[in-house]
Amino acid sequence: MSRFFGDLGPIRFDPQGEGLCFRHYDPDRMVMGKRLEEHLRFAVAYWHSFAWPGGDPFGGQTFDRPWFGDTMDGARMKAEVAFEMFEILGQPFFCFHDADIRPEGATFAESRRNFEEIVDIFASKMETSKTRLLWGTANLFSHRRFMSGAATNPDPDVFAWSAATVKQCMDATHKLGGENYVLWGGREGYETLLNTDMGRELDQMGRFLSMVVDYKHKIGFEGAILIEPKPQEPTKHQYDYDVATVYGHLQRFGLEKEVKLNIEQGHAILAGHSFEHEIALAQALGVFGSIDMNRNDYQSGWDTDQFPNNVPEVALAYYEILKGGGFASGGTNFDAKLRRQSLDPEDLVAAHVGAMDVCARGLIAAADMLEGGELEAARRARYAGWETPEAQAMLTSDLETVAARVEAEGLDPEPRSGRQEILENVVNRYV
Amino acid sequence: MSRFFGDLGPIRFDPQGEGLCFRHYDPDRMVMGKRLEEHLRFAVAYWHSFAWPGGDPFGGQTFDRPWFGDTMDGARMKAEVAFEMFEILGQPFFCFHDADIRPEGATFAESRRNFEEIVDIFASKMETSKTRLLWGTANLFSHRRFMSGAATNPDPDVFAWSAATVKQCMDATHKLGGENYVLWGGREGYETLLNTDMGRELDQMGRFLSMVVDYKHKIGFEGAILIEPKPQEPTKHQYDYDVATVYGHLQRFGLEKEVKLNIEQGHAILAGHSFEHEIALAQALGVFGSIDMNRNDYQSGWDTDQFPNNVPEVALAYYEILKGGGFASGGTNFDAKLRRQSLDPEDLVAAHVGAMDVCARGLIAAADMLEGGELEAARRARYAGWETPEAQAMLTSDLETVAARVEAEGLDPEPRSGRQEILENVVNRYV
Amino acid sequence: MSRFFGDLGPIRFDPQGEGLCFRHYDPDRMVMGKRLEEHLRFAVAYWHSFAWPGGDPFGGQTFDRPWFGDTMDGARMKAEVAFEMFEILGQPFFCFHDADIRPEGATFAESRRNFEEIVDIFASKMETSKTRLLWGTANLFSHRRFMSGAATNPDPDVFAWSAATVKQCMDATHKLGGENYVLWGGREGYETLLNTDMGRELDQMGRFLSMVVDYKHKIGFEGAILIEPKPQEPTKHQYDYDVATVYGHLQRFGLEKEVKLNIEQGHAILAGHSFEHEIALAQALGVFGSIDMNRNDYQSGWDTDQFPNNVPEVALAYYEILKGGGFASGGTNFDAKLRRQSLDPEDLVAAHVGAMDVCARGLIAAADMLEGGELEAARRARYAGWETPEAQAMLTSDLETVAARVEAEGLDPEPRSGRQEILENVVNRYV
Amino acid sequence: MSRFFGDLGPIRFDPQGEGLCFRHYDPDRMVMGKRLEEHLRFAVAYWHSFAWPGGDPFGGQTFDRPWFGDTMDGARMKAEVAFEMFEILGQPFFCFHDADIRPEGATFAESRRNFEEIVDIFASKMETSKTRLLWGTANLFSHRRFMSGAATNPDPDVFAWSAATVKQCMDATHKLGGENYVLWGGREGYETLLNTDMGRELDQMGRFLSMVVDYKHKIGFEGAILIEPKPQEPTKHQYDYDVATVYGHLQRFGLEKEVKLNIEQGHAILAGHSFEHEIALAQALGVFGSIDMNRNDYQSGWDTDQFPNNVPEVALAYYEILKGGGFASGGTNFDAKLRRQSLDPEDLVAAHVGAMDVCARGLIAAADMLEGGELEAARRARYAGWETPEAQAMLTSDLETVAARVEAEGLDPEPRSGRQEILENVVNRYV
Repeated sequence: MSRFFGDLGPIRFDPQGEGLCFRHYDPDRMVMGKRLEEHLRFAVAYWHSFAWPGGDPFGGQTFDRPWFGDTMDGARMKAEVAFEMFEILGQPFFCFHDADIRPEGATFAESRRNFEEIVDIFASKMETSKTRLLWGTANLFSHRRFMSGAATNPDPDVFAWSAATVKQCMDATHKLGGENYVLWGGREGYETLLNTDMGRELDQMGRFLSMVVDYKHKIGFEGAILIEPKPQEPTKHQYDYDVATVYGHLQRFGLEKEVKLNIEQGHAILAGHSFEHEIALAQALGVFGSIDMNRNDYQSGWDTDQFPNNVPEVALAYYEILKGGGFASGGTNFDAKLRRQSLDPEDLVAAHVGAMDVCARGLIAAADMLEGGELEAARRARYAGWETPEAQAMLTSDLETVAARVEAEGLDPEPRSGRQEILENVVNRYV
Repeated sequence: MSRFFGDLGPIRFDPQGEGLCFRHYDPDRMVMGKRLEEHLRFAVAYWHSFAWPGGDPFGGQTFDRPWFGDTMDGARMKAEVAFEMFEILGQPFFCFHDADIRPEGATFAESRRNFEEIVDIFASKMETSKTRLLWGTANLFSHRRFMSGAATNPDPDVFAWSAATVKQCMDATHKLGGENYVLWGGREGYETLLNTDMGRELDQMGRFLSMVVDYKHKIGFEGAILIEPKPQEPTKHQYDYDVATVYGHLQRFGLEKEVKLNIEQGHAILAGHSFEHEIALAQALGVFGSIDMNRNDYQSGWDTDQFPNNVPEVALAYYEILKGGGFASGGTNFDAKLRRQSLDPEDLVAAHVGAMDVCARGLIAAADMLEGGELEAARRARYAGWETPEAQAMLTSDLETVAARVEAEGLDPEPRSGRQEILENVVNRYV
Repeated sequence: MSRFFGDLGPIRFDPQGEGLCFRHYDPDRMVMGKRLEEHLRFAVAYWHSFAWPGGDPFGGQTFDRPWFGDTMDGARMKAEVAFEMFEILGQPFFCFHDADIRPEGATFAESRRNFEEIVDIFASKMETSKTRLLWGTANLFSHRRFMSGAATNPDPDVFAWSAATVKQCMDATHKLGGENYVLWGGREGYETLLNTDMGRELDQMGRFLSMVVDYKHKIGFEGAILIEPKPQEPTKHQYDYDVATVYGHLQRFGLEKEVKLNIEQGHAILAGHSFEHEIALAQALGVFGSIDMNRNDYQSGWDTDQFPNNVPEVALAYYEILKGGGFASGGTNFDAKLRRQSLDPEDLVAAHVGAMDVCARGLIAAADMLEGGELEAARRARYAGWETPEAQAMLTSDLETVAARVEAEGLDPEPRSGRQEILENVVNRYV
Repeated sequence: MSRFFGDLGPIRFDPQGEGLCFRHYDPDRMVMGKRLEEHLRFAVAYWHSFAWPGGDPFGGQTFDRPWFGDTMDGARMKAEVAFEMFEILGQPFFCFHDADIRPEGATFAESRRNFEEIVDIFASKMETSKTRLLWGTANLFSHRRFMSGAATNPDPDVFAWSAATVKQCMDATHKLGGENYVLWGGREGYETLLNTDMGRELDQMGRFLSMVVDYKHKIGFEGAILIEPKPQEPTKHQYDYDVATVYGHLQRFGLEKEVKLNIEQGHAILAGHSFEHEIALAQALGVFGSIDMNRNDYQSGWDTDQFPNNVPEVALAYYEILKGGGFASGGTNFDAKLRRQSLDPEDLVAAHVGAMDVCARGLIAAADMLEGGELEAARRARYAGWETPEAQAMLTSDLETVAARVEAEGLDPEPRSGRQEILENVVNRYV
C-alpha cells in the first residue's frame, strides 16, 4: 500500500507557517532548563487513532480505513500506518492495548500469538523509529466475556483470563522498553448494587493489583504501574472513581508506594473535579504519574474524549505538574478521538498537531508563571501565619491546650481577603 | 408564650386516620426482632427546624418566628418551642450545633456562656422529655471568621478558635448524653486552587481530627466520632468529598478505626452517587455510622435538603443498613428544611410526620426484602463460582501461575445474565 | 425454529402469583370508567427488544440472538420472535423504525423492497394478533450517511434520502393502521457550532416537517404526527431540545396545531426537567401526544433507556396525563433496553412485565389521586384570589392602571404557605 | 467620607504596566471600524458590586462596607462610592434594580419616594459623569412578598405590586436615558408542580409582559425590552428557561418582534448550553439583545456569577455577536460578584479590570477571526450543495416529489468530513 497520509510530510515547527505546522511546539526550545519535548513527552493513542471506527450509541462506523476487518493482514497494515503517522508527527511516544493491535483469535492462545507477532513488528520498527512506548495496557472491557468485570468478575475464570492478559501485556511492555504500565478498570464497577457484592469485588481488585505489582518486580520491569481513575461509564459506578478514591484503595492494600496514577482531564470532569484539582491532589498524596490530555465537553454527560483546545485550562494543569517537578516516567498521552464526522486522514494528523501546539502553549505559560513567581509568593504569604513556632506547636498539641488559648488570649481572628480575582488576573497575564 | 404549634397534639399512629397522624410509623411494631422506633432512631435537626429563616441566594427571610433576633430571650423561647415539637412528634432524638441554640456573643467567652446556659436548659428539659441527643456538632462555617476554613484556615488563630468551639460542643454533647459527635467540614475545602496549599490543609485537617479523637478518649465520651461527607457547596471543593475520599483520609492519619461516617442522601447525590452506594461502601469499609435522611432534587445542582418522599429509594437505603446489622449508635436524622414558601407551623410538623412515615414504609419493606431472601440468594448464586477452593487459591497465587491455567485448561468463560431487571422486579414486590 | 422464549406462556394477571405474572396490571380493571389496557396503551419497541446487540461505547455485542446478521432470513425470524413475545405479553401495541426490521440493501430501492416484504409479514401477522401499531418511525441516524443530520444535512441529497425514507415509513404506518407517526431528530443538531449554520438548518428542519404534515393529509393518514424531544446525544446539541423548544419551533412554522409531542422520561431528565414537568407543559400548550416510559439513571449523564421501576415517579407522570384527559392516539411505549448483562430471553420478558406492573400501579394511584381530589382542591384554593372580577380585570388592563391601585389602596400582600410538604404527604397516601 | 477606594486612580491602558492597568482594553483602539469601547459597551452591575454582602446559603455577610444597613444615608453613600468606582474604571455604563439603590420603606409609597430620591442623585451625577445607564430593572424576587412569584403569583395583589414596581423602574430608566429595560423572572416558575397551575401562570406572565410593552410605547421609551433567561435557581423550574423557551413564549403572545433577550453565560451553562449557542440561536431567531458576561463554575451546579477569565470562551461568544452585526442597544454587563473571601476594595476594582481585559482580548480575537475569514469560508463551503437551484427547489417541493428523485437518480450520498478539529485549530490561531 502507498502511504495512507499521502504527501503529508513531517510536521515542522514554523511559527509563521501556513498549513500544517507547529506554531508553538518547538521540541528543542529550552524551558526551565529542559527541552520542551522532554517536558511534554507526547504520546499517540493507538486505539482511538487507528482502531476506532467512528461509532456511537446511535450509529455505526463512519471511518473507512483500509485495515479495518479484524484480520492479521489488517493488523499489519495498521501498524504500518501508525508508524507512518508517528514519523509525520515526530512525537516521542505511543501507547496501546492488546486488542487495538491484533485480531481476536478463537482461543486465548491464538489471540496471544496474533499479539506477539504484532509486538515483534513494533519492536522491529522501533529500532529505526524515534518513537518509544510510553505505556502498554490491556483491554479488559470490550469483549463480552468482560461484561461483568475483569478482576471483579463473579466468574473466577474471567479473573484468570484477565490475569493472563495483563501478564502478556506487561511482558510486551517490558520487551518494548515501555516506561509505564497502565491499568484502567473499564468494567471494574457495577451496573446495579442489587446483584453486586461490593466488598468482595473490592477485595478481588486489590488482590489482582498486588499480583501485578509482584509480577513487575519479578520480571524486573522498572517502569511505573499506573491506575487511571474514572467515575462511571461504561459502568454506572467504577471503583477507580477519582484520585482520592484510588488513593484510599491503594492504602487499603498497602500499595500507595507502588502504584501511581494516570489522570485524564475528561475523567476528572465526569467525576465533578477540575483536571488541575486531580493533579494537585495526586501530587499532594505522592501518587502523581502521568496524564491523558483529552477534554470532555462541559455540556455532555458522557466521555467525549476530545483533543484539548483551551490553552488557559491546559496551562493550569501543567502548572500543577511543573510545580511538583514535572513528569518522571509519565507523559502527555492523547487519549482523544476524532469527532466521528472527521473522516479524512488529514483530520487525524491536524487534530494531533493542534493539540500538541495547545499543550506547548500551556506548558510554556505554566513555566513562565512558576518562574514569574507571583502565585507562589501570594500562596506563601497567605499561610505565613503558620510559620511561627507557636502555630506549628499547635499541630502537635491537644484540643484542650489549644482551646485554652482562645479565651486566655482573647483571640478574635479577622478575615483577610483571599484575592481570588487578583490571582486569576495574574494567570491571565501568562496565558 | 402560648404554644407555638397551637392545639397540634401528639401525633398518633392511626393507619386509617384523617389529618395529621402516622399511617405507617408505629414505634412499637416489631420488625426483625426490634421495635421500629429502635430501628429508625429518628432525630429532629434543630438548625433547619428552628433557626433557618427561609432565605436563599436570591431572597431573604420568609419565616416569621417570634424567637428570631439573636437574643438570649429568643434562644430560650426557641428551646421551648423545640421541645414542644419533640413532644408532638415523639421522635426519640434531636441534634444541634452551638450556633443554632445561642446568640453569638461579642467574645468567645460570651458566646460560650450563652451556649452553656441553653445547654443547661436542654439538660433540664431532657429530664422529663423522652427526647435524647443523637449528636452534637459545631458550626464552623457560618460566621465570617470561618470564610477560609476552620482547621484548614490559613490563619492559625482560626484553627485555635475552631478547636475551642469543638471542645465546648463535645463537652456539651457528653454532658447531655449524646450518642455521637459529628464533624461537617463546612468550609474545609477551597474556592480556588490558586490560593490554596492543599497538602498543607489536608495535614491540618488530619491533625485536627486526631486531636478530636484524643479528646474524646480523654473525657471518656463513649459515643462515635462521625464525619459527614459532602463534595461541594459552600466551597467549590470540599475535602470530605464522599465516603471513599473520607476513608482514604482516615487511613492516611491512622484513624479508620476511630471515626465513622454520617452519610446524607443529598450529599451523596451531589457527589454523583446514589445514597445506597454510599451506605454500602461505608459498610464494606467498616465505617458506617449514621444517616441524614434528606433528599436532593435531581434536577437542581445545589443542596436542597428536602424531606424524603420516595419510598422505593428510602427502602434501598435501609436495605443496605439492615444488611449491615442496622444502626449501632447512629440514627435517622432529618437534616431537612421546609421549602421557604411553607410558612405555617403546621408545615413543619407535617413535613416531619410525612418523612417519618416514608422512612417507616421504607424500613419495613427493606426488612421484608431481607427476610424474603430472594436478593441475597441471587447475589450468593452469582458469586458461587468463587466458593471453590481452586478459585480461592487464585487470590493468594501469583500472576504467572494464574495465567498459566488459561492456556493449559483452555478456559473460555461464557457470560451469564446479570438479571438486573428481574432483581428490580423483586424489589418492586416489596416497596 | 422452535419458540425463542421456550415455554414462557402468556403472562396472566395474578396478584398473588409466583414467577412471571402481572401482579398489578389487570387489563380489564375499570379505572375512571375505562379499562386499564385502554388507559395505558402499552407498546413494545422493536429496536431495543429485537435489534439491539448489547453494545456500548466501550464494548460490543453481548446478546447472542439467532436472527442477528443483517439478512432477510434473520429479519423474518426476528419478526416471528417479536410476535411470539407480543403474544406472551399481550400488550396492545408495538412500534418500529425501518432499520429495525429489515437489512440495509445496496441501494435505496433494495432497502425499500426488504422493508416492504417485512411490512407485509407484519400485516399478515396482525390479522390474527391483537397487537396493533402505535407508531412507525424512520431511523435517520444510524447509517453513516446521516452522520451530519437528515433534514438538516449540509448535503441536499441526504435531505432527499431522508424524505424518501420518511415517506416510505409513513406509507407503511398508514398501511398497518398505525395510530401515530413519530419523528425523532436523531442527528438534527450539531457537534460544533464552528461548522454549523444553525439558522439555515432550523429552516430546513421546519420545511421538512411541513412536507411531512402535508403528506399526511394527502394520503389521508388520520393518526397524529409526533415529535420526540431530546436535548443531546448523539449530537452535542439537538434542535428538538425539550417540549418548550419544540413548541417554539412548531409555532415558527405554523405547525403547532398539526404536530404533537412524544415525550420520554429519559430525555426529560437529560434536558434538566422532571418527566411530569414536560408532560404538564405539553398539556398546557396543547401539544401532548404520547410517552416513552423509560427512565434515565439519575447519576449517569447519558441516555440509559432503562425500564421504569419507581412507582411514585410514574404516578406523577400519569397524574398529569389523566388530568389532561388521558391518551388520545398516544400510548405508553417502552423505549427501554435491557442492561447489556441481561442476556437471557426471560430477562426481556421479565423487564416488560415488571415495567407494565409499575405503570399499572402508577396509573391506578394517579386515578385515585384525581378522584380523591385533595390536590386539585388545594390548587384551586391557592389561586382563588384570581377568580374575582377585579383580579380578572387586571389581566386586560394596563400597567399604569394596575400600578395606581397599589398606592391608592395601600396594598401590602401577605405571603401564604405553599404547603409543598403537606401536598407531598397527600401524594404518598396514594402511591 | 473620604474615598472608599483610597488612591486607586483611573485605570489606564498600559500594555506593559505594572499593578492595576488595562493591558488589552484600549477604549480607543479601532476594531472593524469602531472603537473598542463602542463594541464592548461595558456595564457595572450595581447589585453585586455595591449591595451584595458576601453571604451564601451556609454563611452570612463577609464584606464590611460602611454603607450597609438599609438606611437612606447608606443609600446615598453607596451612590457616591458607585460613581467613584465608575470614574476609576471608566466603563461607559451601569445597571441597577430598584432594591439595590434604596432601602425598603414601610409602604410601597415610601419605597417609591426613597427610590426616586436616589434616582435623582443618579441623574445629577450623570450630568458630569461619562457613565450612562445600560439598563434598569426591578427586583421582584428578594422580598418575601415575591416568594411565590411576581406576575405569576397566586395572589393578584402581588401581580399589582409587581406592575407598580416595574412601572416605576421603567419610568426611572426612561428618565435616566437608559438604553434598555430588562425583566428577569426571578421567581416566575415553581418549586413544585403539585401546587402550581402552570398554564394559568404562563398566561399571567404573558399578559404582564404585554402590559410592559404597551407601557414602553405609551411613554415613548425607545430602548429595547429584554428578557433574561435562566433555567432554575431560585426556583426549581423557571419559566424563562433558555433562549428557545423564551422565544416560544414570546411567539405565543405575539411579542417576538417587541422583546429581545439578555443572555448570561452562567445561565446558559445552568441550562445545559454553551454561551455561544444561546447567542447564536438568539441571532438566528432575531431576538438577540444584550449579554451578562459572567461565567459559571463548570463543576458547581448553582449560579456562581464569576467574573469572566477564559479568553477562548469569551472570544467564541463575541464571534457570534460580531457575526450578527455587534450590539445595537445592548452591551456587556458584568452580572458578576466577587468571591465572598475577596474582602478588599481593591478586589472589586481588580476583578472588573481583569474582566474588561479578558473581554477586550476576546473581542479583538473574534474580530480577527471574522476578518481572517477562514471559518466563514469553511462554513459556506460545507453548505455549498444547497446553493443550486435544484436543491433550493426541494425546499418548496413536497415529500413525494423529493422521494421520487432518490430512486430515479440512484442517489447514494457520500459523507464528507466535518473538519471540527481543523476548525478548532483555526480558532486557536486567533485566541
